[in-house]
Amino acid sequence: MQLQIERRGERPLYLQVVEQIQERIRSGALPSGSRLPPIRQLANELGLTRLTIHNAYAELQADGWIESFVGRGSFVAERPGAKGQMRPSPVLPPVPLLQPGALGEIMRLAQQPHMISFAQAAAAPETFPMHEFGRVVQQVLSESGAELYDYGLTQGDPQLRQQLSLYLLDRGLQIAPEQLLVVGGAQQGIDIVLRALVSPGDTVLVEGPTYLGMVERMQMQGLKLVAVPMDEQGIRPDALETAIALHQPRLLYTIPTFHNPTGISMSAARQETLLDIAGRHALPILEDDIYGPLAYDGPAPLPLKVHDTQGLVTYLTSFSKMLMPGLRLGVIASASPLLDALVAVKRFSDMHSPQLTQRALAEYLARGHFAGHLRSVRAFYRERRDAMIASLQRHFPSDATCTVPAGGFCCWVALPPGLRSPDLYLTAIERGVAFAPGQMFFPEQPAQDYMRLSFAAHAPEEIERGIATLGELLHEQIVRRHRLRAPSFYDTVPMV
Amino acid sequence: MQLQIERRGERPLYLQVVEQIQERIRSGALPSGSRLPPIRQLANELGLTRLTIHNAYAELQADGWIESFVGRGSFVAERPGAKGQMRPSPVLPPVPLLQPGALGEIMRLAQQPHMISFAQAAAAPETFPMHEFGRVVQQVLSESGAELYDYGLTQGDPQLRQQLSLYLLDRGLQIAPEQLLVVGGAQQGIDIVLRALVSPGDTVLVEGPTYLGMVERMQMQGLKLVAVPMDEQGIRPDALETAIALHQPRLLYTIPTFHNPTGISMSAARQETLLDIAGRHALPILEDDIYGPLAYDGPAPLPLKVHDTQGLVTYLTSFSKMLMPGLRLGVIASASPLLDALVAVKRFSDMHSPQLTQRALAEYLARGHFAGHLRSVRAFYRERRDAMIASLQRHFPSDATCTVPAGGFCCWVALPPGLRSPDLYLTAIERGVAFAPGQMFFPEQPAQDYMRLSFAAHAPEEIERGIATLGELLHEQIVRRHRLRAPSFYDTVPMV
Repeated sequence: MQLQIERRGERPLYLQVVEQIQERIRSGALPSGSRLPPIRQLANELGLTRLTIHNAYAELQADGWIESFVGRGSFVAERPGAKGQMRPSPVLPPVPLLQPGALGEIMRLAQQPHMISFAQAAAAPETFPMHEFGRVVQQVLSESGAELYDYGLTQGDPQLRQQLSLYLLDRGLQIAPEQLLVVGGAQQGIDIVLRALVSPGDTVLVEGPTYLGMVERMQMQGLKLVAVPMDEQGIRPDALETAIALHQPRLLYTIPTFHNPTGISMSAARQETLLDIAGRHALPILEDDIYGPLAYDGPAPLPLKVHDTQGLVTYLTSFSKMLMPGLRLGVIASASPLLDALVAVKRFSDMHSPQLTQRALAEYLARGHFAGHLRSVRAFYRERRDAMIASLQRHFPSDATCTVPAGGFCCWVALPPGLRSPDLYLTAIERGVAFAPGQMFFPEQPAQDYMRLSFAAHAPEEIERGIATLGELLHEQIVRRHRLRAPSFYDTVPMV
Repeated sequence: MQLQIERRGERPLYLQVVEQIQERIRSGALPSGSRLPPIRQLANELGLTRLTIHNAYAELQADGWIESFVGRGSFVAERPGAKGQMRPSPVLPPVPLLQPGALGEIMRLAQQPHMISFAQAAAAPETFPMHEFGRVVQQVLSESGAELYDYGLTQGDPQLRQQLSLYLLDRGLQIAPEQLLVVGGAQQGIDIVLRALVSPGDTVLVEGPTYLGMVERMQMQGLKLVAVPMDEQGIRPDALETAIALHQPRLLYTIPTFHNPTGISMSAARQETLLDIAGRHALPILEDDIYGPLAYDGPAPLPLKVHDTQGLVTYLTSFSKMLMPGLRLGVIASASPLLDALVAVKRFSDMHSPQLTQRALAEYLARGHFAGHLRSVRAFYRERRDAMIASLQRHFPSDATCTVPAGGFCCWVALPPGLRSPDLYLTAIERGVAFAPGQMFFPEQPAQDYMRLSFAAHAPEEIERGIATLGELLHEQIVRRHRLRAPSFYDTVPMV
């Protein structure tokens, strides 16, 4: 399909695709029932990203111009455009970015050169203790025998579990090395717990919003994810009770400390209430504490697991945010019989994590480097957090509201009513700034839209530049929305 | 429960447990309905392995002395021993070793000091090129920037995929780096392919016998595994046709070259027939080529994938057998759209494999070390293979038959009729020799029983000692079986 894309124009690329396809449908060049080229093919032909084409198709579908069928493709609708003409106001497309691989797309886009990316909640490479870690690897190489390269225990290297047990004391947790399972990052930890506890068709409760990898994981495996709304103290007890009654969930997944994406920490009182509710319903909890030690305004809240007298909580953390993600190492704390099941799942997932990285992390922890590293990254990220909050206050419209996180990597901005993060997303990328659209963090389309802005990866002056660009865009969009929403004939057609 | 275990006696430990519990049931000390201690608890009390107690309970259950219920425990039966008295001949217990974690148990037992273990098909640590690999790691450390510790691509490090693409040329495969997915060993490769292609309730065809990890994986996920019998040329075409017609499988998993556990390689003619059958039924194939390059009698057969003109075959290999298992690195070769799905599953399984090990393997391959390593390990394992075959001929009963593998790590011994590998297994371990019981490699109890003997881990003189011990045991068991099977009153009771 030959479309004329104006790369340097003001019009977002995906909208150009949308409009030209609409034109061809109207003109009869694309009759009802005719098949559109696959996303990948059209992207290649036009030299655009697949994401752009995907969003164009999603927009066309939402407005009733085309119909898409998984595995078959996209086709011009029977009465194209009919749906769009009936609607009193723009309707959000069916979460176009919430496709398999949105996380991968974010990771790829964020890696483009010169991009100011607030998209990925990743540790800043300049904080990596490369020199110290390199020496530690060399020591491991020189001290180890063949066991460094041989099969190891599925549960994880004993020396590493010993060190992890000591580390967890700093989080207020007394957990023996025998109760730990070393995993390939928090992502694998989540996957293993889900595989041990949840079957297809089961429901898992999460905070709404929640970790994107969790949303993707559930969709791809045909599992049911139900988001429980949060308030400023964390997950809402009344909504939790309702969700339990309604869905008989098998598991609650929560990020109580420096929650991703909102940055909210659960209050101590809320933790008690949550454990009380879960206890009454015998609901197991998976606590994701990946950001716990990254506290910028005083000590971090204690994990849920500390207050867990009933053995409800499986605790999970990883070194991807606190140290270096490329190590792919994290840890689960649990007890029999669940621990046995988790170890069994780890075994058929990948036998065990590599020995070299495990031993190196063990030695790094044993040398006592980690406490000093945490002190220095706390100061480092605090400065960036403060910079982002200040830039947001300077540049964002006053009706965009933002959380002020006391730890972790993310600010969570509620967009002014009527603004859509996917629209903004693609335009922002064209102007060299990336963020994570809020929709991606919800299993279902939220009533309001958000953006997640991670301040970890950029220095204060880049943060200022990027937020200024985003602020401009928001103001433009508000003006555009007002124009689009001017009263018209269609606004008076009753919804049926 | 206080039992008197004679550790140095001739009587196998698990039989001592069986007999003493039977005695207590007969004497009324353990009345009907009373609960036996959990396996773990009794094992701790008696200082025995859980496996021993597990097998004792399985034997008692098979003979009708006790009844076991998942999650509730084991209880003395209503009419204890009734079933046993009715039986004309010993009946096999319900695959006691085929429990979740049999692979873990093997790995643990094999790691006991002074054990001559033929149980685990693992590379010999003395072949590990530790020195060269250590230098390679140091080079990677000194040359890399922060990207070594940062998030990487889910599909795998581009430099590693480049090297893997070159390596695969030696196996006759022309596969672009873009068509490769780096995985955490073959175990993760299998897991990812199953998760992308197979849903609970679906049937997967495998060779009977097949890789143990596959059997465990399927059982724990409620998937259906159907074993297709083999002959000396590989999987049998007639049986494959029947299995396809009967089960409408979603996938065929095969190890065509130096098959684990039998050591058999599929003939070229059989490969063509197999691809023809799979093509007619549009049956996808997962080819596990983990042992491919370990050929001892001339060049290895080419992989199935080489002859795959229809895109049916997903190819999988790993560096665990050819190089070092602790690296946890392997690779899948596939094409879109399946490749996209595999990458997505890898992403939510563990994001990506660690950067450090990937880069180190890339550098190791780039330096050209691997071809020399393969030459030297082929000679090394050939000697051990020859030693084991010679020892088997010297010490095993003439009615035990054995495959002579032209590559890989395993000999596959068909036991004389009436002998049970679990019986032998525990007694052998008590005498300091471990092997892998044949039952474990079948999804269903096979008609005949086998043992898998891996020759990789021990020097020829240890192989000779271990095989002599096993040979003795086999001869003893044959004598014992003959005694037990002498005609008796019960042999005349008709089976109902």
